[in-house]
Amino acid sequence: MPTTQSASPPDLGLTRAGRATLSEQLAERFAERIRQRLLSPGTRLPSVRSCAARHGVSPSTVVGAYDLLQAQGLVQAKPQRGFFVRDAATPLGRVASTGVLLEGGTSAAPPAHDRSRASAHADTAQPGPAAPSSADTNPPRPVDATALIRGMFRPRRGAPPAPGQGTLPEAWLDAELLQRALRRVTAGAGAMGWLSYGDPAGDPRLRQALVRRLADIGVPASADQIVTTVGATHALDLVARTLLQPGDAVLVDEPGWAVEYARLSRMGLRLLPVPRGPEGPDLAVLEALARAHRPRLYVTVSVLHNPTGASLAPAHAHRLLRLAEALDFLLVEDDTYAWLAPSHATRVAQLDALQRTVYVSGFSKILVPQWRVGYVAAAPALAERLIDTKMLGTLTTPAPLEQAVAWCLEQGALRRHAERVATLLAAARTRTVRLAREAGCRFVAPPEGLFGWIDVGTDTEPLAHQLLDEGWLTAPGMLFHATPRPTTLMRVNFATGQDARFWQRLQSLRKQEKRADS
Amino acid sequence: MPTTQSASPPDLGLTRAGRATLSEQLAERFAERIRQRLLSPGTRLPSVRSCAARHGVSPSTVVGAYDLLQAQGLVQAKPQRGFFVRDAATPLGRVASTGVLLEGGTSAAPPAHDRSRASAHADTAQPGPAAPSSADTNPPRPVDATALIRGMFRPRRGAPPAPGQGTLPEAWLDAELLQRALRRVTAGAGAMGWLSYGDPAGDPRLRQALVRRLADIGVPASADQIVTTVGATHALDLVARTLLQPGDAVLVDEPGWAVEYARLSRMGLRLLPVPRGPEGPDLAVLEALARAHRPRLYVTVSVLHNPTGASLAPAHAHRLLRLAEALDFLLVEDDTYAWLAPSHATRVAQLDALQRTVYVSGFSKILVPQWRVGYVAAAPALAERLIDTKMLGTLTTPAPLEQAVAWCLEQGALRRHAERVATLLAAARTRTVRLAREAGCRFVAPPEGLFGWIDVGTDTEPLAHQLLDEGWLTAPGMLFHATPRPTTLMRVNFATGQDARFWQRLQSLRKQEKRADS
Repeated sequence: MPTTQSASPPDLGLTRAGRATLSEQLAERFAERIRQRLLSPGTRLPSVRSCAARHGVSPSTVVGAYDLLQAQGLVQAKPQRGFFVRDAATPLGRVASTGVLLEGGTSAAPPAHDRSRASAHADTAQPGPAAPSSADTNPPRPVDATALIRGMFRPRRGAPPAPGQGTLPEAWLDAELLQRALRRVTAGAGAMGWLSYGDPAGDPRLRQALVRRLADIGVPASADQIVTTVGATHALDLVARTLLQPGDAVLVDEPGWAVEYARLSRMGLRLLPVPRGPEGPDLAVLEALARAHRPRLYVTVSVLHNPTGASLAPAHAHRLLRLAEALDFLLVEDDTYAWLAPSHATRVAQLDALQRTVYVSGFSKILVPQWRVGYVAAAPALAERLIDTKMLGTLTTPAPLEQAVAWCLEQGALRRHAERVATLLAAARTRTVRLAREAGCRFVAPPEGLFGWIDVGTDTEPLAHQLLDEGWLTAPGMLFHATPRPTTLMRVNFATGQDARFWQRLQSLRKQEKRADS
Repeated sequence: MPTTQSASPPDLGLTRAGRATLSEQLAERFAERIRQRLLSPGTRLPSVRSCAARHGVSPSTVVGAYDLLQAQGLVQAKPQRGFFVRDAATPLGRVASTGVLLEGGTSAAPPAHDRSRASAHADTAQPGPAAPSSADTNPPRPVDATALIRGMFRPRRGAPPAPGQGTLPEAWLDAELLQRALRRVTAGAGAMGWLSYGDPAGDPRLRQALVRRLADIGVPASADQIVTTVGATHALDLVARTLLQPGDAVLVDEPGWAVEYARLSRMGLRLLPVPRGPEGPDLAVLEALARAHRPRLYVTVSVLHNPTGASLAPAHAHRLLRLAEALDFLLVEDDTYAWLAPSHATRVAQLDALQRTVYVSGFSKILVPQWRVGYVAAAPALAERLIDTKMLGTLTTPAPLEQAVAWCLEQGALRRHAERVATLLAAARTRTVRLAREAGCRFVAPPEGLFGWIDVGTDTEPLAHQLLDEGWLTAPGMLFHATPRPTTLMRVNFATGQDARFWQRLQSLRKQEKRADS
């Protein structure tokens, strides 16, 4: 399997040769970004002067573009303050769809739910309420969780590799293995099982294979402790919906994964961010937060934490479990990156044997993202409650794909594939680390697994916008903070971050920024 | 395809020949039912005398059995009141997992959420809090929504057909077609699409096929108005999570589907049940409720309503839409049974063109339950918000199965299959209607589609327990009421209700009950 080779970055520059005026071209570029939610409601557009300088056009061209956007109802002008993105995409009333990342500084406080009524004629594109007032007092928040996720999901055929993406390169996955597995399952007697709803806990064959998988990583579980899900994301959602009520407090890693923050915030939960160091969470902070707020659970990534790549040290795991026992909260261990780590990596679930821990994992980061197969393992009584929640939300989960993943596990094919990926990833990591360091970036945590967490030395959020203009999708650090704030950190995917041109461009932009600052 | 033939009902009688005593056998039967949640926490066991009479054993045998159950921690004795099922299955604290059906008379009031803390050692089977106090004042509530659903999902190999089940008989489905579709998709180039997360809105090929399907039934929609889901259940969940907040009021059909009540109740919503007649909802009641409670939406089944089988009359649809416009609520049209009805059946979405209506459907009731493919169609802006909710809960949905369903639609194979099923169902309905009437049952609504709604003339809830003892799963009327109450109604599946022995047994039990009453 070759490593990903990039196409040339598409030319996103404005052109004087086309039929559209420069203003029209510039307006269209902003309009597309607003429609794609890369610019979210309430965001302030760049000042006329800085926009003109960035794109090499006159200020009057920019003014013309902004006027066009205003005429289209996409932005609104505020006297003395500039142009702001309107909420035209959600005429039914704005809901904090991306949770905490849209709510400036709401950490440890429930988000303000929009209570505006379902209004008439949902598709007549009546602009919704004006941008929330926080947009008037807070700095713009251009990239939100939805944007990052949608960026990852948007087809990017012909686009250069995305150093910000969250998955392995497609070329590293084994489409032939997937086809073989699904053919075997389709030809077999299992097809008869498709004709009923099936077992609410999930396909019995997969759950049996997962019993062995969990035993391999030292987590003892029986099949009736395992509930299959539509990917690990669905597993985390089931756990939250089963155990939490609006207003509950929940501990989370910071930095951490934006989708998790967004989901918990949207459920009306109070997020309690715990700083994540190279050995694990800051236990002093965790203890103080737990004593003050009495959280019901702590959602954490023990192995190859996203975005830092750090893994929990064994002694740290022991102390964490003791704290959970003493302060009476459950631990939800999100082991999404399990297959990229050595099998002996430390999980609290090993020490605790799933009494106070809930173990979540899946196959999107190793085998196939688009089959959406994940699972959760928990104490038997909690597993029953998770099944109830699952049934209310999806009844059961798709058997053919669960059976095909079971086949991959049973045959040892997944283990062999994971070994190949580990070899590729080690080489990619060496190369990307070298390129990043040569570009003047510093690794905050030792490089491990799929993601590096690097300090670029300049605010990564405007940088991300500039790089996106040039075709490079990155993951600026603010996306990984429960409380958005400017940061010089950035997550880089070792596998898709191997293009030297990306790092050269990053370095030159860094230098420009630094020069502008001084 | 043959109609389903039943095996003999398994012998569930107690035997004097085995090694277990009669008390042990009786205790084990109750224990199994408690574990399966057919007897939910707080339920009172039958009196010693009635239990002895039902099973033809001595009162001392029953006392012995109840003592065994108490020793196992499954029931608790209350002086002067009898034996009650404990909450041992949920030591983490009881949550109203089945929503309103577990909460006596909470309609139009948010359910009382259990706030007990996540307690230590989830799997040590510490009995939870005592049965809720409502068990002390309300009549026992033996069958709850979870029991019905789990009953439908429990493997029943060798069991007789279940007149209470909610799906077509397995023998009516076309496993060969499903295998062919999945083989085609697996062999094709689509497999490369599995390697990324794919389009958050759902597989583009399926959404395109659904545009044509919706046009066939008179609902105009473009592909960007369609979001695929993990079955119609997931679609309804996405809509509720996107549009509603705890405390909101929501109109529902009554009778209606227990899972919908349970999900909405669990979200902390106030259910406003609207009586459902042969032409549609009672519009006078609906208007009064909407004026008093200002609901945000009305979740309804327009075509082949579950459980009555009735369909919305065109003039009624028009008046309903006018009311929705005047009182500013959205209509969620659950068209789960669409493929069993003529394509010209009336949906409000036809009149409204998805402005104020949200259309939900799926393939579990016609093609294959276990693939879990469904979808929602809505106004473009609302569709965008539904995608956001979908991403937070499952990221995307499984492409291979969506592609395979698309293939079935494209080839016309699904339409031909639906025509075959319609023929089988018409014959089954004729037979079942005759058997039911001969057994003294009366149809409350004209028999149409998959389900009949019949008046048995005696309380169907104790009847359901007695029939379950003998191997027949039924669906007593109380399951379809938002406010549980004794009822003589019952839902019967025309396809799985064709066994004459069932109706004979039902008739003899009816007569016994009537005799006991007089």
